[in-house]
Amino acid sequence: MSAAAAGLRGEHFLAGAAETEGGETFTAIDPHSGKAIGPSYAEATAAQVERACAAAAAAKLPLLATAPAQRAALLRRIADGLLELGDELLTCYCAETALPKGRAEAERGRTVGQLRLYADLVEAGSWVDARIDRADQQRQPMPKPDLRRMLVGIGPVVVFGASNFPLAYSVAGGDTASALAAGCPVIVKGHPAHPGTSELVGRVIHDAVRALGLPAGTFSLLHGRSHEVGTLLVQHPAIAAVGFTGSHRGGRALFDLAAARPEPIPVFAEMGSMNPVLILPRAMAARGAQIAAQLAASALLAGGQFCTSPGMVLWQRGAGDEAFVATLTEQLGGAAAAPTVHPSIKSGYDAAFAELGKLPVEVTARGAVGDGATAVCLTLLSASAAAVVANPRLRTEIYGPAVLTVGCGQRAELLQLAGSLHGHLTATVHGDGDDFAEFADVIEVLRSKVGRLLANGVPTGVEVCGAMVHGGPYPAATDARFSAVGPTAILRWARPVCWQDWPHELLPAELQDHNPLGIRRTIDGVVS
Amino acid sequence: MSAAAAGLRGEHFLAGAAETEGGETFTAIDPHSGKAIGPSYAEATAAQVERACAAAAAAKLPLLATAPAQRAALLRRIADGLLELGDELLTCYCAETALPKGRAEAERGRTVGQLRLYADLVEAGSWVDARIDRADQQRQPMPKPDLRRMLVGIGPVVVFGASNFPLAYSVAGGDTASALAAGCPVIVKGHPAHPGTSELVGRVIHDAVRALGLPAGTFSLLHGRSHEVGTLLVQHPAIAAVGFTGSHRGGRALFDLAAARPEPIPVFAEMGSMNPVLILPRAMAARGAQIAAQLAASALLAGGQFCTSPGMVLWQRGAGDEAFVATLTEQLGGAAAAPTVHPSIKSGYDAAFAELGKLPVEVTARGAVGDGATAVCLTLLSASAAAVVANPRLRTEIYGPAVLTVGCGQRAELLQLAGSLHGHLTATVHGDGDDFAEFADVIEVLRSKVGRLLANGVPTGVEVCGAMVHGGPYPAATDARFSAVGPTAILRWARPVCWQDWPHELLPAELQDHNPLGIRRTIDGVVS
Repeated sequence: MSAAAAGLRGEHFLAGAAETEGGETFTAIDPHSGKAIGPSYAEATAAQVERACAAAAAAKLPLLATAPAQRAALLRRIADGLLELGDELLTCYCAETALPKGRAEAERGRTVGQLRLYADLVEAGSWVDARIDRADQQRQPMPKPDLRRMLVGIGPVVVFGASNFPLAYSVAGGDTASALAAGCPVIVKGHPAHPGTSELVGRVIHDAVRALGLPAGTFSLLHGRSHEVGTLLVQHPAIAAVGFTGSHRGGRALFDLAAARPEPIPVFAEMGSMNPVLILPRAMAARGAQIAAQLAASALLAGGQFCTSPGMVLWQRGAGDEAFVATLTEQLGGAAAAPTVHPSIKSGYDAAFAELGKLPVEVTARGAVGDGATAVCLTLLSASAAAVVANPRLRTEIYGPAVLTVGCGQRAELLQLAGSLHGHLTATVHGDGDDFAEFADVIEVLRSKVGRLLANGVPTGVEVCGAMVHGGPYPAATDARFSAVGPTAILRWARPVCWQDWPHELLPAELQDHNPLGIRRTIDGVVS
Repeated sequence: MSAAAAGLRGEHFLAGAAETEGGETFTAIDPHSGKAIGPSYAEATAAQVERACAAAAAAKLPLLATAPAQRAALLRRIADGLLELGDELLTCYCAETALPKGRAEAERGRTVGQLRLYADLVEAGSWVDARIDRADQQRQPMPKPDLRRMLVGIGPVVVFGASNFPLAYSVAGGDTASALAAGCPVIVKGHPAHPGTSELVGRVIHDAVRALGLPAGTFSLLHGRSHEVGTLLVQHPAIAAVGFTGSHRGGRALFDLAAARPEPIPVFAEMGSMNPVLILPRAMAARGAQIAAQLAASALLAGGQFCTSPGMVLWQRGAGDEAFVATLTEQLGGAAAAPTVHPSIKSGYDAAFAELGKLPVEVTARGAVGDGATAVCLTLLSASAAAVVANPRLRTEIYGPAVLTVGCGQRAELLQLAGSLHGHLTATVHGDGDDFAEFADVIEVLRSKVGRLLANGVPTGVEVCGAMVHGGPYPAATDARFSAVGPTAILRWARPVCWQDWPHELLPAELQDHNPLGIRRTIDGVVS
């Protein structure tokens, strides 16, 4: 049994019970060797999906009825449990993904931080945006009723584990943590690239739910490698919403399934992004080489497998861009081959390059060729603005370590290129002095297409805080009105409910006159 | 020329130009006589749709760049303009809808109030939910960047005029007002039942946009009777979102079109609802007849054409229910026939009853038969709980004046019936004393299926205020996370954007340190 298998039993966690049964089996793959590691995991069956969904449906109202402090306790217990797993979790994570231990530790830290953030948020309670408009019996021509509104969890959420974030966007990741915080039961479909990591984390949640006496259907983890498990989950009438981080193809398929249901449900899919980087003339002239080095380091992080990885650079040709291109070529061409987290990432990367062969785009540098089963070499590409505007494929992400450079001629070309872009998670602008004012129109076009706009930095590194927006216009995400990161991510799983002239003692605590939870509320239009 | 035609010219308003051109023509219909009134209106052509959308796309960034005070001025000028139309508007409204003048005045009042509410909201500015997380250069292991986030309008919105609210949910209604407030250009597809009212209101907006020097594409009004104009609008790549109030069939069709786009867009469709009313035993025993009278008055309002009209009553059989049924039968059976706003409403109503003929449901009273071209008579129906649970059609709205009564046997039957309901805008509970506690489980099930829960009242009458929720789980609306009424309705047309380490002087005013607009903001997690 390999290192990844320590403590693993190949278990689903199905509404309070651990079970290994199921259909066809699969294992994790060591990205270095391409060999199977760890125990076998059985594909969840339709009957198991049905049981998980029925249990989640049964847990819906009881879980909503729990006090915020109980849900906070659950999240904190999960956070503690992840840390208690210690090296077992880190070892399994690294074996399944070929990501380094430092990354595993950092991601665990972020995951634990997210769980605690949502615990604090739900315990503080003000996220429910309570609004009270009091009655006025004297109002003419009609008396005004008493109206009280707050956000309430929408019900069972299906979360799809992400291949590139086995902790922070998987079983106990941001989607799960924010949904549980909102009082929504969660069914996770584990990503088949890291079933062991999923199992370890799933057991922590399973144990925490039991220890706190919460309804069994509060949490399930189902394994699966085919699309069937996910399809059945998204189509199940008990499911109220879906969270997904991954490829455009996968996210769109889930969105389409959800939209075609008799009762459509929201899908929050965070998908691909090229994260365009615009370098303006003064910055290019003053520090082209330095920007190139900064950008190369960002593009190389995690083998280009961050959703915020910079995949496209645009600039107006002029002073400094030779040094910029030379440095970028040198740094990326000299890069070591990086293993991707799963063979499917490598095959997708290779397939994308096969497609590009037919398009007017030039490979200007390639990193070292690796010998691991999933290793891809970094690729630097160059195309003209006209080619990018004419070929949508060139404006579409290549997932993995690839950077497309587009040196533009006239200023108008830059504006046209920016206008041709679809939605992205981020756009970055490097500028000095009057650059920003001079290119205000181009920047405003970029702003209208992204969730986050950065100056003089790199898009990788997603701060978990209230001002963060991780999302953006399609196809960066399926609903630009919400962020997948930070406290506002909880808003994806809630809806407003209004109580009119309701018996005061039967109102939720958040809406009672004496404000027993001490939350911030808007009363007759005034926030206090 | 009939009364409705005063001041009417059969004009579209197309991005700054009035024009009468188009395809096939249609007219308004006098609901009493069934005869054509007013001028001819031409179906907008594909070329006109294209021009309106292109102009809206061109207006997108300039309109977003306007100061909130400019958008407030626009909304106030529209409100003033509606009032300045005086009796011309009221006369046209009444002629096209057969609704009484008092209703026209009340709806105009609400419409003007909504425009001013959004003007105040956007001028006050705090709706953008500004969040600032300041930099920390000393943070370990990585410095923390400066992140600033606010809500920004999403771009051109298509609004479909509603047949049942020719003012409050049509050309200058809540959807248009909230979208303009958010800085989104609006293209209205006028409802063919009241083209004259649409034209008068459209001219007011058209004039206001010009007078304030706003981009021509800020507003267009296109007429059309076929589905084609709406289909082309929803499919156009320039459109970012859709607002709709109307039938389930229409709303779902638009939702499906929008979801199938290469770039899906949100559709906020507020559709049908039966607004179930639950009468609990103590209330029934104490005041069954009184509740019946209250309910009958609510069901008769506007000929049952309010989306919050009570269409289903459930109770557990017992003391007082005979008096309740007798009073309801008497009051509804004695009701005068009401003209509906358009012949299509009558034909839909009649078709629904043809369907019901095959189902286990009994007609227990019918109101007077009218002689107008669109008159329908009120219908009181009765079915067993088992029949309602078994037949989805019985749990689906009949648009117009129809009320289904369901007396249940055991308590469990009531719970099962509540559980079988789909989403509704409202649910009303009549209860006295311990009723609420005793039936807490049934009430919680109802709560989980609606946007607004009322005690001891009637669902008709939608207060325009911050605590209002007008929406609910599907099929009441296509996105339960938003309300179509009140200040929060603006959130449908905005998305968060984050600026990271952005040059301070180039940040939006809402996000600058010195808070020039004096809005409420969350800084490092603290609201001030």
